[in-house]
Amino acid sequence: MTFTEKLNDILSARKSLLCVGLDAVMEKIPAPLRQSPEPLFQFNKAIIDATLPYAAAFKINTAFYEAWGLEGWRALEKTFAYLPAEVIKIADAKRGDIGNTSLSYSRALFTGLGADAVTVNPLMGTDSTAPFLQDPQRGVFFLCLTSNPGSQDFQHFSDGQVRLYEKIAVKVGEWNRHGNCGLVVGATHPAELQGLRSLAPDLPFLIPGIGAQGGDLENSVRFGLTAQGGGALFNSSRAILYASSGDDFAAAAAAEAKATRDALNRAKVS
Amino acid sequence: MTFTEKLNDILSARKSLLCVGLDAVMEKIPAPLRQSPEPLFQFNKAIIDATLPYAAAFKINTAFYEAWGLEGWRALEKTFAYLPAEVIKIADAKRGDIGNTSLSYSRALFTGLGADAVTVNPLMGTDSTAPFLQDPQRGVFFLCLTSNPGSQDFQHFSDGQVRLYEKIAVKVGEWNRHGNCGLVVGATHPAELQGLRSLAPDLPFLIPGIGAQGGDLENSVRFGLTAQGGGALFNSSRAILYASSGDDFAAAAAAEAKATRDALNRAKVS
Repeated sequence: MTFTEKLNDILSARKSLLCVGLDAVMEKIPAPLRQSPEPLFQFNKAIIDATLPYAAAFKINTAFYEAWGLEGWRALEKTFAYLPAEVIKIADAKRGDIGNTSLSYSRALFTGLGADAVTVNPLMGTDSTAPFLQDPQRGVFFLCLTSNPGSQDFQHFSDGQVRLYEKIAVKVGEWNRHGNCGLVVGATHPAELQGLRSLAPDLPFLIPGIGAQGGDLENSVRFGLTAQGGGALFNSSRAILYASSGDDFAAAAAAEAKATRDALNRAKVS
Repeated sequence: MTFTEKLNDILSARKSLLCVGLDAVMEKIPAPLRQSPEPLFQFNKAIIDATLPYAAAFKINTAFYEAWGLEGWRALEKTFAYLPAEVIKIADAKRGDIGNTSLSYSRALFTGLGADAVTVNPLMGTDSTAPFLQDPQRGVFFLCLTSNPGSQDFQHFSDGQVRLYEKIAVKVGEWNRHGNCGLVVGATHPAELQGLRSLAPDLPFLIPGIGAQGGDLENSVRFGLTAQGGGALFNSSRAILYASSGDDFAAAAAAEAKATRDALNRAKVS
């Protein structure tokens, strides 16, 4: 079974398109947990327990853990190990380097952390991405059109026919020989999302930006899904994690995750 | 003093343009060291001790350490801590993410590891790179034209006037308000290097590819230096680290580092 098949099975089985982003920021962790011996992991554990019923996937951005050195890397390992097999585990690391170096990154993320999928920056081209694509069961979401304002600087660069992000989408389609490639496309660009879905009808999309970044949830669902109604994960991080800064943070995160899952499902059928 | 001023001072003081790349690959570490409790760090320590007289900088690619999880991250920290202040310490991490996330990466690499400079992938644009540029004393080398074959896939994409890598060089010039921006330009492209030096006369270049990757050392020096004869670091990793796989690996690395430094200096005056 390829990564894409596994993803679509999980989306159907869990009746959810929601990916919960575990961007644990120390200063935002509720005070009692912050004083525990393992604040990052204990926070993640509480969030996972609370939001698991509503999520199809969890995405862990490595930056927030690397910022804490060894302690952070330990929290990263423990968080991946804690996530159950019934959800997709994504290491949002945005790596990419020359071939022998990318092989080391793929070992770190797939073998070391046990991620089902990773995010990769495609700027260095084919040989830099190949080492991540060897195992059909492990997925790669390539940065294509990101959700931030700076996406305008280079991703929209055009030769008059296609823009860079469209060229990336087409190239990723070529790299998809094992059924394990996808694209990162921000929810802040619904019109471009529609164009990308035409260019890449079957590639899974990882769509950040529907929460705190203010992306357009309804149009992102409308234009982001495949014709079969799958093939897309919608990520929300801060809006769920920090729904409350009080003792009720886990219950508030659960309520926000449920509301987001339901909004995504409503947008799907409308 | 800005990062660029510090770099140029060090190049002059040490009479060297050489950057030694610490890409420690476990399988290539000589057998006796591989059985020590800290093989990655002990290998790096031996290489640093042997090659320090010939180097202006050391570049540590984080991938090779992340591949070993906690043990690897500890080796990364110890290696940075071991490097003396008289050389430039580069974390070759090729990171880049949305603003608040890039801020975490800059903490991990500058504050956590103590790097003087990092490599950053510019694909996500201005707001993704700004958090790395806050401290004028800490440098950022942006991926511009990389040394691998896949650099053809996107970096050469052109609007008929400029290619993407030229557009990146111009944009990095705009980002250089604090005198701390540079470019990564592979030695495998000497003709393009000449063009980039015209576009960015004063930006420091980090030039990989002169060792095992087979880049053109003489033309890279000829075209890569600034008009003042500085502003470029030439990286060699595998050719120095694995000059010998026997007990004499440190002496062989020293000899290769000295030969490379001398070849760079000869190319500079010719």
